[in-house]
Amino acid sequence: MSGGHTSSPSVIPRTLTWHGDATGSLRLLDQTLLPTECREIVCTTVEQVWEAIKKLRVRGAPAIGVAAAYGVVIGTRTTRDADRRAFDQRLQEVTDYLATSRPTAVNLFWALERLQQVAVAMPDALAAQVHDRLLAEARSIEAEDRAMCAAIGRHGAELLPDCCGVLTHCNAGGLATAGDGTALAVIFAAAAQGKSIQVYADETRPLLQGARLTAWELQQRNIPVTVICDSMAGWVMKERRVQAVIVGADRIAANGDTANKIGTYSVALLAKAHGIPFYVAAPSTTFDLSLASGDQIPIEERAADEITHSFGRQTAPTGVGVYNPAFDVTPAEYITALVTERGVIRPVTRERVWEMVGIASESS
Amino acid sequence: MSGGHTSSPSVIPRTLTWHGDATGSLRLLDQTLLPTECREIVCTTVEQVWEAIKKLRVRGAPAIGVAAAYGVVIGTRTTRDADRRAFDQRLQEVTDYLATSRPTAVNLFWALERLQQVAVAMPDALAAQVHDRLLAEARSIEAEDRAMCAAIGRHGAELLPDCCGVLTHCNAGGLATAGDGTALAVIFAAAAQGKSIQVYADETRPLLQGARLTAWELQQRNIPVTVICDSMAGWVMKERRVQAVIVGADRIAANGDTANKIGTYSVALLAKAHGIPFYVAAPSTTFDLSLASGDQIPIEERAADEITHSFGRQTAPTGVGVYNPAFDVTPAEYITALVTERGVIRPVTRERVWEMVGIASESS
Repeated sequence: MSGGHTSSPSVIPRTLTWHGDATGSLRLLDQTLLPTECREIVCTTVEQVWEAIKKLRVRGAPAIGVAAAYGVVIGTRTTRDADRRAFDQRLQEVTDYLATSRPTAVNLFWALERLQQVAVAMPDALAAQVHDRLLAEARSIEAEDRAMCAAIGRHGAELLPDCCGVLTHCNAGGLATAGDGTALAVIFAAAAQGKSIQVYADETRPLLQGARLTAWELQQRNIPVTVICDSMAGWVMKERRVQAVIVGADRIAANGDTANKIGTYSVALLAKAHGIPFYVAAPSTTFDLSLASGDQIPIEERAADEITHSFGRQTAPTGVGVYNPAFDVTPAEYITALVTERGVIRPVTRERVWEMVGIASESS
Repeated sequence: MSGGHTSSPSVIPRTLTWHGDATGSLRLLDQTLLPTECREIVCTTVEQVWEAIKKLRVRGAPAIGVAAAYGVVIGTRTTRDADRRAFDQRLQEVTDYLATSRPTAVNLFWALERLQQVAVAMPDALAAQVHDRLLAEARSIEAEDRAMCAAIGRHGAELLPDCCGVLTHCNAGGLATAGDGTALAVIFAAAAQGKSIQVYADETRPLLQGARLTAWELQQRNIPVTVICDSMAGWVMKERRVQAVIVGADRIAANGDTANKIGTYSVALLAKAHGIPFYVAAPSTTFDLSLASGDQIPIEERAADEITHSFGRQTAPTGVGVYNPAFDVTPAEYITALVTERGVIRPVTRERVWEMVGIASESS
């Protein structure tokens, strides 16, 4: 809390923090309670981490990756003093278990795989030694995530003109990462350069991450933000209130097709119809080059009651049919540019994607 | 309650019904309680009718007109046995008062004016005779509304193929009229012809008329309905789940530009992008030929708390900016056809609009 002024990011509660050594605990800002309550939960079991990811207490592909990495540290603690066979078996159990929490978030699998490789690379080490290294690796993932956010902000800020309206969907902010976020990092960086930006935040039904989280984050940073219903996005474009759209991503295929929060596809089509650039900001870890196109990205379907019983009140008739896909896929042709921590991919083609993120993706 | 089977519309609670003679009462289905409670309110004073319109217990331009007409009958009952001067004075008071309930609803003024003309046309009659005629006129307005709905359904049903998915936005059903509705009348008529139709109902933020009312109505009629969030409309089109879109209208300009519930414009653009026909169903009374185009239609902006405090819970940070236009305007170029009680306007051009509704609009 050393920040000098109230708008400093340093006074904003952190999305997640690890406390203690390898037998420590993970603290998460419970995002389901925002914006009316700002409360942390402490996870000391892998089940608590799984539940926090599943129930979106922690969310956003990068933040899920970091949380899952710490979840592995927590889950393997029980075999820290066991023999390696027992430890490795537990590691497998824990990673398999955590992998079931959110099927679309590629960073989840990436982080779990990375921790597994740590153990593989230390075949002769004691369980406790491996366990300490798992924590170090989780910390690295977190640190890299912060650096990634800063780099995305730096590269993306160039894309936003001064005195413009920017529309965003869902929350791709600091709450979705360990750092400043992806899409919002771009806005924060542009604002830090002195650009005047008015953000339009889609409320983002059904779970209202835009109204609850994005609006809250921007307000914390003193960036002007106007909340709209998702159905108003087309109309604010028609009224020339926005000059750019920027969103995050959950998974990006090799051709640039992008899975993101349901509604992103509609916003991309509406932006295209109004001649407004549509940007996606995401780290290279969000790219899944094993998928040739977005058709191969699995779409998580969530429970009906997210729509019929929002926020404690029944708003649709009992027994009505509901369709609740959590994500949609925006074809690359609607994406003006992809902003990564390595640079901007523009135009969005298979070749450019490969040039920018191909090598790291292969080596990871 | 003479319907033979449970799916008959006759068993569905009526939007509004008049009970008794000119000293009778108006029963309204309280739409603010739907879909969890299906309760009628009985209005025996004009203040109760005013309150019901103001608080959206009865809503939808045609239904408001009918309710207001019966409200005049109720309000003038106190002077039924008085002299004509006192009766006429009371009539003026009552119409002035009811006119303040929803100042933007054009059918409200139209109905009130029509009842006033009844009295003007009977200068020598006794108050009780005029009062009886006011009831007869209110009943006529109701009957004409039912006939209008049936005719729209008949004309529109041809447009929907068998075995199709139809997306609708907001509620343009029986709950918005005395009859079967406008957009939903088309779906009901197509279903009555034996066509298999799966409706996708946009929940329609912020007030959820789609989830609360459209889904309820369709369920009552045993028509398969799936509620989606507004942000999912584009994706269900992309997934080829819908082959047509049909919505109602609040006001239609002379060139066919259509004002309807916010979000309609986005749906129209998305339909266009997917090659899906986009239909608007509305009576000829909804056309405002005094407006050359939709640019001249004023857009009502509503309170911020409809967005920030939905569902009985605060869902956006205190003090955040909000933009809440109640309507948007869909340009005629995105509308495949306009379905009226007189027939289908297709293509939607100024000339075709004038041919179909020009004469009556001038005479009304």
